[in-house]
Amino acid sequence: MAESYEFTVYRGTFIQLPRGDSSRKPELVRNCGTLWVSSTDGRIKGFDWQARDDATFQELMSRNGWVDVDAATNGNGVNGATVNVKVVIASEDRNEFFFPGFIDTHIHAPQFPNVGLFGSSTLLDWLETYTFPVESGFGSKSDPKNQDKNPKDAPPSALRIYDQVVARTLSHGTTCASYFATVHVPATNALAALCHSRGQRAFIGRTCMDNPDFCPEYYRDQSADDSISATRSTIEYIHTLDPKGTLVKPIVTPRFVPTCTRPALEGLGKLVAEYNPPLHIQTHISENTNEVALVKDLFPECPSYASVYDTYNLLTSRTILAHAVHLTADERALVRKRDAKISHCPASNAALGSGIAPIRVMLDEGITVGLGTDVSGGYSPSILEAARQACLSSRLLGHTTAHAECKPVNGYDKTEGREKLSVAEALYLATRGGAAVVDMADEIGGFEEGMIWDAQLIELGGVSEQGECPLDVVSNGNGSLVKPGPVGNVDLFGAETWEEKMQKWVWSGDDRNTKAVWVSGRLVHQRV
Amino acid sequence: MAESYEFTVYRGTFIQLPRGDSSRKPELVRNCGTLWVSSTDGRIKGFDWQARDDATFQELMSRNGWVDVDAATNGNGVNGATVNVKVVIASEDRNEFFFPGFIDTHIHAPQFPNVGLFGSSTLLDWLETYTFPVESGFGSKSDPKNQDKNPKDAPPSALRIYDQVVARTLSHGTTCASYFATVHVPATNALAALCHSRGQRAFIGRTCMDNPDFCPEYYRDQSADDSISATRSTIEYIHTLDPKGTLVKPIVTPRFVPTCTRPALEGLGKLVAEYNPPLHIQTHISENTNEVALVKDLFPECPSYASVYDTYNLLTSRTILAHAVHLTADERALVRKRDAKISHCPASNAALGSGIAPIRVMLDEGITVGLGTDVSGGYSPSILEAARQACLSSRLLGHTTAHAECKPVNGYDKTEGREKLSVAEALYLATRGGAAVVDMADEIGGFEEGMIWDAQLIELGGVSEQGECPLDVVSNGNGSLVKPGPVGNVDLFGAETWEEKMQKWVWSGDDRNTKAVWVSGRLVHQRV
Repeated sequence: MAESYEFTVYRGTFIQLPRGDSSRKPELVRNCGTLWVSSTDGRIKGFDWQARDDATFQELMSRNGWVDVDAATNGNGVNGATVNVKVVIASEDRNEFFFPGFIDTHIHAPQFPNVGLFGSSTLLDWLETYTFPVESGFGSKSDPKNQDKNPKDAPPSALRIYDQVVARTLSHGTTCASYFATVHVPATNALAALCHSRGQRAFIGRTCMDNPDFCPEYYRDQSADDSISATRSTIEYIHTLDPKGTLVKPIVTPRFVPTCTRPALEGLGKLVAEYNPPLHIQTHISENTNEVALVKDLFPECPSYASVYDTYNLLTSRTILAHAVHLTADERALVRKRDAKISHCPASNAALGSGIAPIRVMLDEGITVGLGTDVSGGYSPSILEAARQACLSSRLLGHTTAHAECKPVNGYDKTEGREKLSVAEALYLATRGGAAVVDMADEIGGFEEGMIWDAQLIELGGVSEQGECPLDVVSNGNGSLVKPGPVGNVDLFGAETWEEKMQKWVWSGDDRNTKAVWVSGRLVHQRV
Repeated sequence: MAESYEFTVYRGTFIQLPRGDSSRKPELVRNCGTLWVSSTDGRIKGFDWQARDDATFQELMSRNGWVDVDAATNGNGVNGATVNVKVVIASEDRNEFFFPGFIDTHIHAPQFPNVGLFGSSTLLDWLETYTFPVESGFGSKSDPKNQDKNPKDAPPSALRIYDQVVARTLSHGTTCASYFATVHVPATNALAALCHSRGQRAFIGRTCMDNPDFCPEYYRDQSADDSISATRSTIEYIHTLDPKGTLVKPIVTPRFVPTCTRPALEGLGKLVAEYNPPLHIQTHISENTNEVALVKDLFPECPSYASVYDTYNLLTSRTILAHAVHLTADERALVRKRDAKISHCPASNAALGSGIAPIRVMLDEGITVGLGTDVSGGYSPSILEAARQACLSSRLLGHTTAHAECKPVNGYDKTEGREKLSVAEALYLATRGGAAVVDMADEIGGFEEGMIWDAQLIELGGVSEQGECPLDVVSNGNGSLVKPGPVGNVDLFGAETWEEKMQKWVWSGDDRNTKAVWVSGRLVHQRV
């Protein structure tokens, strides 16, 4: 995208997680200084962690011949020696900092209207009661074979919901999402188009589900062939929309084993391999114990749930497996061997009573894990909320029967309390982990030179000043109740270390603290 | 408090939980109409669920000779036949409704600066690392025997924190809180004074802790006698501040068994009984398995943790026991027999890895339960968040070893899935349950005639209008990202039933949805 400036120069505090061995508990890293991003490709071209104070910063600007387009000198004309730049500052007084954008590795866009609605159901009855009815509304009865491709033929209500889910997730700092859509081609294509125009990085999956035994008559692919051809249709549309996959990519999406016939699974495995590089894949695995038992019944020839996907060439290094709450040690070894990725969805796993996935064990075994909101099994479109719930669930893991039985593979020994995820670990999953899950560990999730600027500006707010003695102020009964200073629910009292501020963000923060969001260097959300 | 009008007339939708047998799963009840509250005593004087539309409402106004003080006719003079009233309307279009105020049955006011800070610690190390250091700052070194009583002698930082915690909890709809303060008399009295002037209903407890083996040298009562006399001092102050206990009451607060010597427990039990009616009591019980083991070691003569309190006459019908995660069936039977109350603190119990309390079992056994935030073991001052976490934790309870071992007493049989708390059950705990826990079931928590108007006005926001086709709108890349309509994170699409709107409030709502809050009929918070 052409801008009137060559670089955006970000100045202030930058916090991120280091890349590294997932078997080590990560720590947050903080730098103060200046980082610049090219307007041409949205990538980080350099940084200078010495350029902190005004003098050093101005020296950096001069050295590079940079001229601030918004400064008073704007319009002085660009000669050969100067380069226009836009300067964005994270205010120290307001406790602002730049942080990598969040990556939601598992979200069902059409289920957004059902956020918060699940009663006391568990997975299989929830699908029938809440999910299939809402998803079925994203198509047209006049196109049962899904041959239409035009996004504008999607129902207006579908467009409205998809538009809102993209807007909402961006406002929560989600710069990249791996979406399940519905079976319908026009609406799926519309979701891709909306992400593309709003500027959210996305993987778009048309949901494949052709098994009449487990999909309702009113909502399914009519045959395995239909499932493959409709999927191909959305892939072609997305490849036309974004030929280089700069922002939006297709992802092959068998819903989960019970909804797919053997021919469909086989066909999808072949479809993936037709492309070079092979297509990405996303599905669900071992979310719920009844589901695990059902898969065992349906595929007696396969030794495990994971092996079903493996049999059909769907367990690859570009596969995202959502949930993985009840994987056996053998399955985890297989997942590791294939380098398939796990999307941990703790809010959903609690809400639907699925259980608690042993994330630290998987990480220690070398499995790649990211976070997913799993809207609307999950009740929130916020990855910050998912990070919080990942911490909370992991603290309850020690009380579960699964934890007692969990036998780690690869010689790793469980250590007392090690299963508890720290704030830094949860934020690792939300950024670096998610980047690796969507196969973009070299591109997003951190601030190395050459990486794409998918980032958010977080504002925690200032420390409220000590004013009059509160015993005097409120005695008139008209005190204004929340002091100026805090943004949202984060309260800072001035004694916090920067690490403690980060903890307060994760535990008390929300979208009010997300002041601005960029994807590929483009500003895509700003809090109003 | 004298107002320029005799009644406030509330018109619109009223939602509450019915009073009833705790062994039944409650359902929300919704009425549309008009309810009026006396300015003299803040109590509900009547309601008319027929007075919904304009005509019926005006007819009700005329019949009673009511004149709206804010209407154009204001200032026409009051003659014998008319009565000035203030009218407050909950807008149907904005999905507004009146709901009983939340009751926080367990919160540590001085720990508010530590919200979100607990690392991966568990109860006993968390107390030493995070809690005692912050609490110790609420006193003065020049008064080691705690003989000063003047709230203005509390450190300025203490006043600032207490002021903020009262402001914050009010902004989350907490109309009544049972506070733990610190050991210090002036700061404890200041907390009482701040609640009184800001208008929050509160129980204020000076924390008793005199056991040198488990309290640090820098932060404890110097003796059992000091503990009793300092407690008496705060009781006298509060009784002077609010002689009838209309808003603020003292509550005797042994921190928990390990921090109290036998003489202190004995003395506090006697102190309670000196008053008529006896004083209220609050403490902790069976939060953590190490703590349970410690109490067993310390009091070998007592058969259980609960029996320690019982031995010292501290287990009464006016006692609030926080946590109760690991009570045995025998202890639950004793708690039931004494009619002591339980404060369930699910956010804290997850955050500190304490475990999951079997709430449905306790309710079915006839035990009274309310919700507590347990700031800062809990990371949020919001009872709405506590309600959400109560639902979530209960959905994971079936995966815990404790659930498998839990043997209900009183002949009640566990039914599959019954342990999962519904949104209505969680809101019951947050209002009716909490009211009973603080011994005010006849006064607050619902909208019966004669009850006190402790209430909140919730605004979910309107349904966003279907505008232009989003595929056209956002193609310029400048769409404003969150549509007008929603307040905070609640998204309504227009097809929701009222029960579903309530679910969306609990799962996606926050303080942005709390538009106004009243205590005893006085407006104490309004969202700006």
